[in-house]
Amino acid sequence: MSSEKYVVGVDFGTLSGRALLVRVSDGAEIASAVHEYKHAVLEDLLPKSGKKLPPDWALQVPSDYVDVLKITVPAVLTSSGIDPHDVIGIATDFTACTVLPVTEDGTPLSELPQFESNPHAYIKLWKHHAAQPHADRINELAHARAEKWISRYGGKISSEWEFAKALQVLEESPEIYEGMRYWIEAADWIVWQLSGSYVRNICTAGYKGIYQDGAYPSPEYLGALNPKFSDFVTTKLEHTLGDLGAKAGTLSAEAAQWTGLPEGIAVAVGNVDAHVTAAAANAVNPGQMIAIMGTSTCHVMVSDSLAEVPGMCGVVPGGIVTGKLGYEAGQSGVGDIFGWFANNYASDEVQEKAKAAGVDIHTYLSDLSALQPVGAHGLVALDWQSGNRSTLVDHQLSGLIVGMTLSTRPEEIYRAIVESTAFGARKIVETFNKSGVPVKEFIAAGGLIKNRFVMQIYADVLNMPITVIKSAQGPALGSAIHAAVAAGAYKDVIEAAASMGGVEDERFNPISQNAEAYNELFGHYDALYEEFGHNEMMHDLRRIRDKAISQELHHG
Amino acid sequence: MSSEKYVVGVDFGTLSGRALLVRVSDGAEIASAVHEYKHAVLEDLLPKSGKKLPPDWALQVPSDYVDVLKITVPAVLTSSGIDPHDVIGIATDFTACTVLPVTEDGTPLSELPQFESNPHAYIKLWKHHAAQPHADRINELAHARAEKWISRYGGKISSEWEFAKALQVLEESPEIYEGMRYWIEAADWIVWQLSGSYVRNICTAGYKGIYQDGAYPSPEYLGALNPKFSDFVTTKLEHTLGDLGAKAGTLSAEAAQWTGLPEGIAVAVGNVDAHVTAAAANAVNPGQMIAIMGTSTCHVMVSDSLAEVPGMCGVVPGGIVTGKLGYEAGQSGVGDIFGWFANNYASDEVQEKAKAAGVDIHTYLSDLSALQPVGAHGLVALDWQSGNRSTLVDHQLSGLIVGMTLSTRPEEIYRAIVESTAFGARKIVETFNKSGVPVKEFIAAGGLIKNRFVMQIYADVLNMPITVIKSAQGPALGSAIHAAVAAGAYKDVIEAAASMGGVEDERFNPISQNAEAYNELFGHYDALYEEFGHNEMMHDLRRIRDKAISQELHHG
Repeated sequence: MSSEKYVVGVDFGTLSGRALLVRVSDGAEIASAVHEYKHAVLEDLLPKSGKKLPPDWALQVPSDYVDVLKITVPAVLTSSGIDPHDVIGIATDFTACTVLPVTEDGTPLSELPQFESNPHAYIKLWKHHAAQPHADRINELAHARAEKWISRYGGKISSEWEFAKALQVLEESPEIYEGMRYWIEAADWIVWQLSGSYVRNICTAGYKGIYQDGAYPSPEYLGALNPKFSDFVTTKLEHTLGDLGAKAGTLSAEAAQWTGLPEGIAVAVGNVDAHVTAAAANAVNPGQMIAIMGTSTCHVMVSDSLAEVPGMCGVVPGGIVTGKLGYEAGQSGVGDIFGWFANNYASDEVQEKAKAAGVDIHTYLSDLSALQPVGAHGLVALDWQSGNRSTLVDHQLSGLIVGMTLSTRPEEIYRAIVESTAFGARKIVETFNKSGVPVKEFIAAGGLIKNRFVMQIYADVLNMPITVIKSAQGPALGSAIHAAVAAGAYKDVIEAAASMGGVEDERFNPISQNAEAYNELFGHYDALYEEFGHNEMMHDLRRIRDKAISQELHHG
Repeated sequence: MSSEKYVVGVDFGTLSGRALLVRVSDGAEIASAVHEYKHAVLEDLLPKSGKKLPPDWALQVPSDYVDVLKITVPAVLTSSGIDPHDVIGIATDFTACTVLPVTEDGTPLSELPQFESNPHAYIKLWKHHAAQPHADRINELAHARAEKWISRYGGKISSEWEFAKALQVLEESPEIYEGMRYWIEAADWIVWQLSGSYVRNICTAGYKGIYQDGAYPSPEYLGALNPKFSDFVTTKLEHTLGDLGAKAGTLSAEAAQWTGLPEGIAVAVGNVDAHVTAAAANAVNPGQMIAIMGTSTCHVMVSDSLAEVPGMCGVVPGGIVTGKLGYEAGQSGVGDIFGWFANNYASDEVQEKAKAAGVDIHTYLSDLSALQPVGAHGLVALDWQSGNRSTLVDHQLSGLIVGMTLSTRPEEIYRAIVESTAFGARKIVETFNKSGVPVKEFIAAGGLIKNRFVMQIYADVLNMPITVIKSAQGPALGSAIHAAVAAGAYKDVIEAAASMGGVEDERFNPISQNAEAYNELFGHYDALYEEFGHNEMMHDLRRIRDKAISQELHHG
């Protein structure tokens, strides 16, 4: 046995899981392995029965997660060549809210033969959006009853979260609702598989499970939603809570066999991919906002003070690091808006030129539009093609662009769209600043950090330097850091993050002339934001759209 | 000699001229011929000297117009096989305001060796836009002095018109200004070439030459613009006026030689392409609005009553037919907006599919989007990519689109753009209705009438049946009708139009369900129109754009 110790972090994403073997002393990433889920996301059909799913459904299959443990952990041990006995802990992070019904012993209902053709028996993935009517009722009633917790979530509970999805199960499939002992986050279920212990992590309990001030929503409130829902918390949901970085248990004999790791090593409490990334970037101090920028963006930040920030996703004590308040906000569309435009609206000519230049369409459009000075396109856009999470919490909003002339080129609209998402980020930062939770540093993680064009625009629009996470696999490193803490190698996550996490030395500094020009354009973005965020035009256009489509379905 | 008589109409467009030989008795189109101008539009360089032109300039060469007479008229005589002695008259129509400086005998200054390298010696085509600063001063002073005529032009004189272009000549090239005897419309110059007589047609004098209530702008007003401009009207502009359909003179010996027509036949007073089309469609009665729909749209309508319609291009007694008031309005961008989108924003995939289907991209996008019910795209747009002529008279406005989601497809945006121009037409119709000059029929002419998809949308949006001109060469037929009147074959243009002009029997009828759905969408268009037509956002975005571009030019 060498003196160096190691930990394993496993990041469960939407389509695959990744294991990362990390050196405890300095966070060095020794080996990584990825495994794609066999069933990916079930959006059309159930496996085996082939049963058709309604629109807006998104399910997963529990055994796919276990396969990740069985395949990727042995792979990193093998490829690194280290002695498994030098591994002192394992931790995981997950998409959220991804949630499933299980029996008393943790068996997913979808694995019971009597339920395998019932869609409600499966895991509801974060992006299962079929519980919107249930979320609407949850919100309406919460405001009507002036429930104190509703303001901790920016005024709205999402259809993606535990209560909306559970209410959907109760009302659409009473037999599944009756048949389950626990309504459990996949983040906690996977820890149960590793350790044999069910511990609810404080992060998902707080952000997705409406656990606030030591309590869940009351039976009176729940009963007013549906009489049969009144005992949901006591009979299905509540369970021992665990802090982030704490030990949930030790590796079971069975899990040791799956993974090749020593039985008995520390298994950390579960966690969420975005939140765990804060540790990987060593951005765990008040005022350090970390933005995980990909198809959408998630912003997390710790603070010492409790504030109600309009439109935030939630504030949870210990929700990012123990002992501090964890804030979360989000932009529902970022990279996916860039993709929507580049894939659908770049003409033949532009596509050809990108091919000729040997670059992808994003790089080509970025390079072309980067040649122009700020504002030379004469455009400003709203980044709401996928709705607005923070600060308006309104997924019925839509996109807008203004200023086109007959000489407006695709690369100019592309740039205006990139800028619109940066303006959206600025709006969030300013809202935090105004709410008494000031943002002092902006740290970027996620797939978009590779795009220097995007990063510079964000620096210029925010008029703040942007630092970038060092690790290319932030969530898995974040989990590894939590494993090290759970194993006792560090006092706490803050100490571990300082040794094992970090950012690149190079930062994107705002260019003052650009920042000044963007100030002026942001004024127009803000005017559009306030106008269209509060007038009824976008809602009405959506209502007209939905009516037209439904009439077509009935008559067409 | 047969008993049937014939006339020739010659339509001078932006890039070519077309002659049409027409039977007087019923308007049957016997033969036509087109000739493209050798010099097309001079936008970069002068011919011979190769002198470079500044931005926004657009010039033409007079001999190109004469070539049209020399080539196309003999061609229609030959191909028809009729006896030239059966032709009783010729008439012409022109783009406007297309204007040139000439000597006492009508020689263009550009044909004098001492001026051939001076750009101001050439014809300023309608789309020469370099006199905007002069137009701005003309408008400012007219409002400051409360000149009565300004409201007859919707409150604004265009940079395209006679006074702005002349003031530019005076101030940028005094030698050309001094050297010219007449500042003459090309529409009247070509008639001079045919007949040896200079007659100012009442149509361009009224719409483009600020001739109102029997007078031009006063020397005091003109002197306040520039002291040297005070005698512009008396020394350069005013001349005998001629009614539309009147005889300007008879065909000269020289012109008879050019054309192969008999010397001495009637030559009609000049006219404008849009206005002459009203006769070709037999749309010469009060309440019949004819829209000439192409890259842009021009709306003309006669009325018995004088009204001030906000944002109209002008109202002129006898400006369309003698004895009635002629109203003109316009949309500065229509087909060119469709082209801008289809050419730049239809992806590879869409282009490929259009090719595979064997249709052009407009047809492909139209067919695809026609499948959807009204409003199913959830979009509404403003049609101001090329500014707004009527009703806002503001060329600094720009485009806007709202309602995009990640599933919005190019064909949906294409349809929203087509609809936006129909909404723009509705806004004009409603403005006329509210101003006491009601629109009772809507008749379409121009290149877009071939697109059934566009026509049906206009019918649904306007909630009016749309009839379509029968002739595929409306302006040339309209000129031929005026030739017949000038030759005495009919009492007046109204009588001639009834026999020789007309519309197709088939009309586009509004579909009531669509009309109802469009009412709702138009409400949103109208809200955007009022908001962005009057707030300063688009102006400000353009100012930011122009500043950014000029900084780049200085530093780049």
